[in-house]
Amino acid sequence: MQASPVTQHLGIDVHTHFVPENFPACPHAGAAAVWPSMAPAQQCCHRHVMISGKVYRTVTDQCWSAPRRIEDMAAMRIGRQVLSPMPELLSYWLDAADARVLLRDLNEQLAAVVASAPERFSGLGAVPLQDVDMAVEELHRFAGLGLAGVEIGSNVNGEPIGAPKFDPFFQAAAKLGLAVFVHAVRPSGMERLVGPASLEQALGFPGEVGLAAASVITGNLMARYPALKLAFSHGGGSLALLLPRLEHAWHAFPALHGAVHESPTAQARRLFYDTLVYDAPTLRHLAQVFGTGQLMLGTDYPFAIQENDPIGRLDQAGFDADAARAMLHETAARFIGLA
Amino acid sequence: MQASPVTQHLGIDVHTHFVPENFPACPHAGAAAVWPSMAPAQQCCHRHVMISGKVYRTVTDQCWSAPRRIEDMAAMRIGRQVLSPMPELLSYWLDAADARVLLRDLNEQLAAVVASAPERFSGLGAVPLQDVDMAVEELHRFAGLGLAGVEIGSNVNGEPIGAPKFDPFFQAAAKLGLAVFVHAVRPSGMERLVGPASLEQALGFPGEVGLAAASVITGNLMARYPALKLAFSHGGGSLALLLPRLEHAWHAFPALHGAVHESPTAQARRLFYDTLVYDAPTLRHLAQVFGTGQLMLGTDYPFAIQENDPIGRLDQAGFDADAARAMLHETAARFIGLA
Repeated sequence: MQASPVTQHLGIDVHTHFVPENFPACPHAGAAAVWPSMAPAQQCCHRHVMISGKVYRTVTDQCWSAPRRIEDMAAMRIGRQVLSPMPELLSYWLDAADARVLLRDLNEQLAAVVASAPERFSGLGAVPLQDVDMAVEELHRFAGLGLAGVEIGSNVNGEPIGAPKFDPFFQAAAKLGLAVFVHAVRPSGMERLVGPASLEQALGFPGEVGLAAASVITGNLMARYPALKLAFSHGGGSLALLLPRLEHAWHAFPALHGAVHESPTAQARRLFYDTLVYDAPTLRHLAQVFGTGQLMLGTDYPFAIQENDPIGRLDQAGFDADAARAMLHETAARFIGLA
Repeated sequence: MQASPVTQHLGIDVHTHFVPENFPACPHAGAAAVWPSMAPAQQCCHRHVMISGKVYRTVTDQCWSAPRRIEDMAAMRIGRQVLSPMPELLSYWLDAADARVLLRDLNEQLAAVVASAPERFSGLGAVPLQDVDMAVEELHRFAGLGLAGVEIGSNVNGEPIGAPKFDPFFQAAAKLGLAVFVHAVRPSGMERLVGPASLEQALGFPGEVGLAAASVITGNLMARYPALKLAFSHGGGSLALLLPRLEHAWHAFPALHGAVHESPTAQARRLFYDTLVYDAPTLRHLAQVFGTGQLMLGTDYPFAIQENDPIGRLDQAGFDADAARAMLHETAARFIGLA
C-alpha cells in the first residue's frame, strides 16, 4: 500500500504499543529468572517474548518496524501513532537498577523508531517507578531522546498511582512538560474472573484503570500539579461509572468531603482519556461525562484486542465537527505537546 | 406525615436494607469473636451494630421499624420496599452452621416486618452460601416465611458467584421461583484505594458488582438456568463499561469465544439491575445497554449513601412513559413475583 493519502489522515492514535526487536543481555544471573528475551517463532515476522521461561506473548514485527506500522496506519486512517511499551515490559517487579538497564535500552530503541519518521510517530518511554527518585532521574533523559512523555502502570507493585509517594514523579513530569499515559498492568480483581486468561485484559483492565484514575482524584493529585498532562487508557476503564457514585458519596460522607478537596467530577474533567471502548454509545457517554475535549483516539495497535477502525467508531458516534476534530487529533496534539 | 397519598405511589424500591432489632445469642464461645450484637447508642432510635468488638455501623430504627419505613416511603413516593439484609450480615465468614443460626433468626425477623404490611413490603432473605448444600436446604424454608427471594453477596469468601460450585444454589432458586439479588460485599480492589474508609462503598462496590455480573456471563449461568431471576445492585456496577470490551474480546480471542456460549451483551440483557447510579445520564446509558425493561428502582434506604429521590431521578432522565413505568414498578413486580 502506498502512503499517498496519508497526509489527509489527521488521526492521532495515542494508544499503540511497542516491543523492541531484541532485549539487552541479562545484567547478572540473579535477574535471569524474570528477564525478558526474544525467541524465534515459526511464522514469518513473528517472535516470542519470553518471560520466566514461558512465551508471554507472540508478537509481530509491527511491534518494532516503522515501515510495517506506517503501512497499517494508512489502512486505519491514522496520521500519527504514539508508541508506548507493551505494559508487561514496565518491569516494576525487577530490582530497580536492573529495570533501569532494560528500560534505557527499550527507550532508546523506541526513540529510534520515532526518530526514523518523526512526522508519523511520537514516543512515550518507561521509567523504574518502583524507585521514585530513580524514575525522576530517568525522566530527565527523555528530552534528549525526543520522547513526548512516559507510560506508567495503573499500579506499581500493587500501590495505586494516586498514593502520595509518587508525587515527586508527577511533579517532575509536570515540570518537564512530559505527557503521562496510564496503562492497566497486573490488575486487581483477578480472583473474581471465571474463564480463560484473556479475561485479564477484557475484564481486569477496565476496573484497574478506573481505580487508578479514582486514586488520582481522591488523592487530589491535579490540585498539586495543575500543569500535569495525565491520560488514562481504555477510556478511563470503569471511571465513568464510578464517578457519579463517588460524587454522591463525596456529598454524603463528611470524612470523604474533607479528604477530597474538589468535586470528583470536576477533577475527572481535567484528565485525558483514550477512546478505546469499542462502542459508539459508550463513547458518547464518556464524552458527556468527561467532556469532548478530553478524549483522544486509542486502538491498542498492534495487539489482538485492537480497535480496527477507530475513526469509523467516531463517525458512528455522530459527534459534531468540533468534537470529532478534538478527538481525532487536537486533544492528542495538546497532550503530547505538538506545536 | 399521613399515608393518604401513598396509594398513588406505585414505585417499588428493590434495594432497601434491613437490620434486625436484636441479634440472637452467640451459639458457642468459638463464634464470639465475629458474632454480631447490638449495643445502645446515645441518640434516640439509634443502635450500634457491633462486630469483632467494634462499631461496624450505627443504625436507626428505620432498619427494623415498619411504621418508620412507611413514613419515609411516603416522602420518597415509594409504594413498596423490597427488604434485604445489610450485606455485612450475610456471614459467609462464619462457620456455616453458626451462620445458619444467625440467618434463620434474621430471616424470621425480616419476614415478620413484611408480614406486618404485606401490601407495602416484600422480603429477600439470606442463606449460608459458604455451604452450597446447606444454602439450598435453607431456600426451601423461604416460601413458608413468605419471602420473595434471597440476597447474596457478589462473592463468597473471595469466590465469584459465577463459579460453577454455586450451580445447585441457582438451580434451586430458579426452580423455587425465588428472586436473587446480588449485592457487593467485601470488594476486590481495596488495596487500590487512596482515602477514607467510605471509599469501600463509593469505589469498591461498583467494580465488585461488575465483576460478579461478568462472572455469571462468562460462566454461562443463564444458559443453564434460563428461568432464573437474577438482579445486580448499584446498576450492575461497572458492568455497562465492561460489556463492550468483553463483547469485542469475545470476537477477538478464540479461547474466550469457545468458553462463553452466547454474546455477553445478549446475556447481560437477561439480567436485572437496580437504578442506583445517582445520575440521570448514567441511567439513560444503562437503559440503552441493558434495556429499559431490565431496570428497577433502588435506593440503599436507609443508609447514608441512599438515593433520596429515586423517582425524581427517573423524571430527570426523561424516559418515555412505557420505559418509566417499567422502571418504576413493572419490572420489579416481575422480579419479585407480584401478581
